[in-house]
Amino acid sequence: MIHTLTEKIKKLEAPIVVGLDPTMKFVPEHIKQKAFAEYGETLKGAAEAVLAFNKGIVDAVCDLVPAVKPQIAMYEQFGVEGLIAFQKTVAYCKEKGLVVIGDIKRGDIGSTSDAYAVGHLGQVQVGTTMCRGFDEDFATLNPYMGSDSVRPFIEVCKKEKKGLFILVKTSNPSSGEFQDRLVLPVGGKDAKEARPLYEIVGEKVAQWADDFMGDEYSYVGAVVGATYPEMGKTLRRIMPKSYILVPGYGAQGGKGKDLKHFFNEDGLGAIVNSSRGIIAAYQQEAYAKYGEENYADAARAAVIDMKEDIRTGIF
Amino acid sequence: MIHTLTEKIKKLEAPIVVGLDPTMKFVPEHIKQKAFAEYGETLKGAAEAVLAFNKGIVDAVCDLVPAVKPQIAMYEQFGVEGLIAFQKTVAYCKEKGLVVIGDIKRGDIGSTSDAYAVGHLGQVQVGTTMCRGFDEDFATLNPYMGSDSVRPFIEVCKKEKKGLFILVKTSNPSSGEFQDRLVLPVGGKDAKEARPLYEIVGEKVAQWADDFMGDEYSYVGAVVGATYPEMGKTLRRIMPKSYILVPGYGAQGGKGKDLKHFFNEDGLGAIVNSSRGIIAAYQQEAYAKYGEENYADAARAAVIDMKEDIRTGIF
Repeated sequence: MIHTLTEKIKKLEAPIVVGLDPTMKFVPEHIKQKAFAEYGETLKGAAEAVLAFNKGIVDAVCDLVPAVKPQIAMYEQFGVEGLIAFQKTVAYCKEKGLVVIGDIKRGDIGSTSDAYAVGHLGQVQVGTTMCRGFDEDFATLNPYMGSDSVRPFIEVCKKEKKGLFILVKTSNPSSGEFQDRLVLPVGGKDAKEARPLYEIVGEKVAQWADDFMGDEYSYVGAVVGATYPEMGKTLRRIMPKSYILVPGYGAQGGKGKDLKHFFNEDGLGAIVNSSRGIIAAYQQEAYAKYGEENYADAARAAVIDMKEDIRTGIF
Repeated sequence: MIHTLTEKIKKLEAPIVVGLDPTMKFVPEHIKQKAFAEYGETLKGAAEAVLAFNKGIVDAVCDLVPAVKPQIAMYEQFGVEGLIAFQKTVAYCKEKGLVVIGDIKRGDIGSTSDAYAVGHLGQVQVGTTMCRGFDEDFATLNPYMGSDSVRPFIEVCKKEKKGLFILVKTSNPSSGEFQDRLVLPVGGKDAKEARPLYEIVGEKVAQWADDFMGDEYSYVGAVVGATYPEMGKTLRRIMPKSYILVPGYGAQGGKGKDLKHFFNEDGLGAIVNSSRGIIAAYQQEAYAKYGEENYADAARAAVIDMKEDIRTGIF
């Protein structure tokens, strides 16, 4: 799957992933009204609106980008009905030839992490039958619990040829509270040798990545926010074989020129996410001319502009 | 809700939570066969088996314990069908008067954490209607992303009078990989002042806890593994107002006598989880006499023994 992702990025010249994070305020009125007319102002009504919205976006951008990243929280907020919409979104995107990164940020101990891994990336045994749950191509993980929590995902990914992006340095303002804290080397007594926690986590990701290599890049990637370009530069060096999934572009403040150092010299090794900058483009001044009805055309225009911004930023 | 939990613990003299983490290998053959006969060896068949299994356990222990902790991963592994069983389990436990701790270990940035919070603990707006998703009483959180990721949960909990348990020191063998690393004080240059990351996270939990107090204890609690009793002692001191949810008892190796220092002098402030030690008690030698058919009676006996082990351990 990492090979598929790399080939798609090369072919489309677009190291871009569209974040499918639909909150109700992004969904145009005509879509909501149609869903509510059929299902009422219910969780099912909301889920149907979200699914219809997503299909419009996906149809409009699927020939331009290699991948999408549905953020499961935005579906989970609508309970079971929302998760049905998540599952249908994953399936629809795969039908359209897109690589699907499930932004699930899971992580737990041993057998519990294994349950998440089989549910999202693998197959679960029921009696003598193997069944698939959500079936994304990649998943994001939270590493706070250590190797125990990551290994079961790697084992499932090895069977399925799927991949991971592990949180290293997140894009949010308070990510530094723990991630930037200076950590002594194991057994070290010299404060001058202390380095930020995100580097320690990055080194661990590099080890996990070495353990599960594709041809050029590893199946084990990392998440590093666009909002911290200097840290991106350091982490690029620490994790040379890992794809970096870069959130925080656009609405969170990251720009194309900030992204140069997230990429390797081969022009690969990173994929930049934009969510509301694309899916809610019609609500921005620059794309307002499309109008709410044509939200998908606005999204397509925003993808084309983002592609150009990143191309000029990194080359 | 923290008041409800405390009162129930006092009344039942049982600072115990039963972990409803049903993997298929814990579910007795007769329950599986019945579900598979009706729904086939499918995700729905598995989910129905799990739900029937849970109901048996809950009926057998609901007068003995204050709370249950369904681990959502064990349901999510069966996709949407599994999550329907999760939702029905939560509802069934609440009907039986149990406090429900959703072991979800979520955490994301800003609006995304808010989506998780409303989906699991609050209400989501759909048009002009407010709807509830999973509706647990408490949830567990992963703090790696910092305050941004925790605050939206606290805001929802304040509206709903619900609570949180934030991962501080987890029970698994590799929890130390990051959590035990020695961290310098902010701006500090003396390695002698470095302290483990779990203490830094514990201090942050104490701040969040101060911000959302109940009568005696805070709505913001912590997770600290029974497998690390010395660290539990330190963290008890750092977070005096937080309930500590203690996993790792029983099957993971923690014993009643290890738990003394997780409690305050009032005999309160901690709640100890056991999952497979109770729900799969019938598979252990000590309770094998009950037989597979009577798995729920075995679970009840295991709860009674656990209650005694903890009582003698902490007093």
